[in-house]
Amino acid sequence: MPPAQHQTQLMSQLTTQPKTQLIALDWGTSSLRAYRLGAHGETLELRALPCGVMQLPATDGDDKTGFENAFEQACGDWLRTAPDTPVIAAGMVGSRQGWQEVPYLEVPIAVDHIGAGLSTLRSRDGQLIHIVPGLIQNSMLPNVMRGEETQVIGVLNTLGAVSGAPGQDVLVGLPGTHSKWVQIHRSKTQNQVAHFDTFMTGEVYAALCGHTILGRGMQAAGNESDTGAAQRAFERGALVAQTAAGQAGVLSTIFSTRTLGLTGVLDGAGQSEYLSGLLIGHEIAALQTMLRDQGRQAAQVMLVGEASLCERYAQVLRTYGFGKIEVVAQATQRGLWQLALMAGLLKHT
Amino acid sequence: MPPAQHQTQLMSQLTTQPKTQLIALDWGTSSLRAYRLGAHGETLELRALPCGVMQLPATDGDDKTGFENAFEQACGDWLRTAPDTPVIAAGMVGSRQGWQEVPYLEVPIAVDHIGAGLSTLRSRDGQLIHIVPGLIQNSMLPNVMRGEETQVIGVLNTLGAVSGAPGQDVLVGLPGTHSKWVQIHRSKTQNQVAHFDTFMTGEVYAALCGHTILGRGMQAAGNESDTGAAQRAFERGALVAQTAAGQAGVLSTIFSTRTLGLTGVLDGAGQSEYLSGLLIGHEIAALQTMLRDQGRQAAQVMLVGEASLCERYAQVLRTYGFGKIEVVAQATQRGLWQLALMAGLLKHT
Repeated sequence: MPPAQHQTQLMSQLTTQPKTQLIALDWGTSSLRAYRLGAHGETLELRALPCGVMQLPATDGDDKTGFENAFEQACGDWLRTAPDTPVIAAGMVGSRQGWQEVPYLEVPIAVDHIGAGLSTLRSRDGQLIHIVPGLIQNSMLPNVMRGEETQVIGVLNTLGAVSGAPGQDVLVGLPGTHSKWVQIHRSKTQNQVAHFDTFMTGEVYAALCGHTILGRGMQAAGNESDTGAAQRAFERGALVAQTAAGQAGVLSTIFSTRTLGLTGVLDGAGQSEYLSGLLIGHEIAALQTMLRDQGRQAAQVMLVGEASLCERYAQVLRTYGFGKIEVVAQATQRGLWQLALMAGLLKHT
Repeated sequence: MPPAQHQTQLMSQLTTQPKTQLIALDWGTSSLRAYRLGAHGETLELRALPCGVMQLPATDGDDKTGFENAFEQACGDWLRTAPDTPVIAAGMVGSRQGWQEVPYLEVPIAVDHIGAGLSTLRSRDGQLIHIVPGLIQNSMLPNVMRGEETQVIGVLNTLGAVSGAPGQDVLVGLPGTHSKWVQIHRSKTQNQVAHFDTFMTGEVYAALCGHTILGRGMQAAGNESDTGAAQRAFERGALVAQTAAGQAGVLSTIFSTRTLGLTGVLDGAGQSEYLSGLLIGHEIAALQTMLRDQGRQAAQVMLVGEASLCERYAQVLRTYGFGKIEVVAQATQRGLWQLALMAGLLKHT
């Protein structure tokens, strides 16, 4: 495109599009989501690219070229249209396999300190990119997150001012491939990430279905359209962890997926639902035991993630007696916006 | 081979080989082992074929032809040499996917009743084959075994006469792809299979290493020849289940395999050993909890299986305070021999 024509198009875009205030990137292992955010943090435009940190298109030589190319694809035109827009990115982009490694910040940590701890890198075009650090919990079994800290901040933003509910702890649940459960202590002066746990439930479920004998029974023809039976199988699985037999733990109870198939209790689709409920049930039961042992009780559970998965978790949480459960949408873009505010990247809100 | 020559060879075999008393087949999912047993149950000859129930060579039409062909390969010549020899088979050969389905017998059951409950089928050559039934434990989480009941009987045989230790319970452990733990109640009159549990530890370990992010870290170069470091990593993993953090359960603790890699505590080989110890530790800890809840204490633990795996389990059992631990060899052929005796298949012993 000749420069004159390009200029014309830019002018036309500027007159028809609301002003871009922030470009926010959610750059994970398998995908890259780019948000163009407006004056109040509202999403003006969203792009989803299959350019996760572990799935970048192959490039010759410099291993950073893949990141540069993906960045250009994601928001190059947005930046040419609005060159002074700040850019913030969260997720695996800041890992050892990412564009630039950003050291973890240590838990417990006040949420405000995360916003004050962004790192920066410059793209080949000179664009400054602010990268959100992940969190680490150093203990006998260390724990890490990258990206979820941003969603947690987005969730907390929906709760309003800190002074609104001092002393009430909040449990933020992020179900997915690796579920995270984040305990937030709320005081009059700050929100603190106090503790978090990881459960590999989603990835274990996929590995068991795809690569063990449990998946073989699931291939048997079942009445797939019978959602009532599927729901009952899920509930049956979810209850296992709270029974005496559930004390045997996941390595043992999962085998019942197969034996309930062998004995004709569950069809193929039922076995799949049962295993899903069984694993989530073990996760929630363990979470409950740990909270009890720590003398903590979450006044409120906030869930973030894919809607149908959040509904599964909400159901099991209710089964295990958790009270107030809320599903929060748009946590990532809210969190990136809040972090940009904390870091002073936004001139006005 | 012309008949005359065949006859000559048979004669020569008869004069040089000890008399075959029993042909015993251990016919599992992935392999078939055929034992030619002598006058006192000693192994005269052993053949291992890759002809498990799920790995039979493809055949046209009749789905039983694969079993017939494998049977011929395994012991056709033995039977032509000694045509009146009884044949007994245990394992998945009696499952729904096997040569002929043999219904499970229900636990609790006296060991002698298993030997009285063999089924029979006839091969296309008219050979009678006695098939050992598997065991089922009907409960909310049903449990099944096929083949392990035979190994348990072999183990009990090494304990000598029932009257030797009445009232002392024995715990038989069969570590492997699916570990089984079998509680035997010993009274003056009988050995009873009272209860058993299954742990999918071996298969879960393989699925986690091969098909989750945990395997990725294991590929990192480590000092593979440092057996001391490997042993320490295994022990570190084995201890996890008995700590406060271990209360989070397997779905959560396995993630530490990755984080101990990320934080530089474990190299690639160390992560693999750590995960092995961690899973076995969770298995033994759960077993201990269940025995305690049932008010039982095993006077003796007998292990059957691959030698190095039994050594891993013995080590973790000691860590968790189990006392007398013994590894038993040749349990399968001993068990098949005992079952043939119980069933009256052997004219004299």
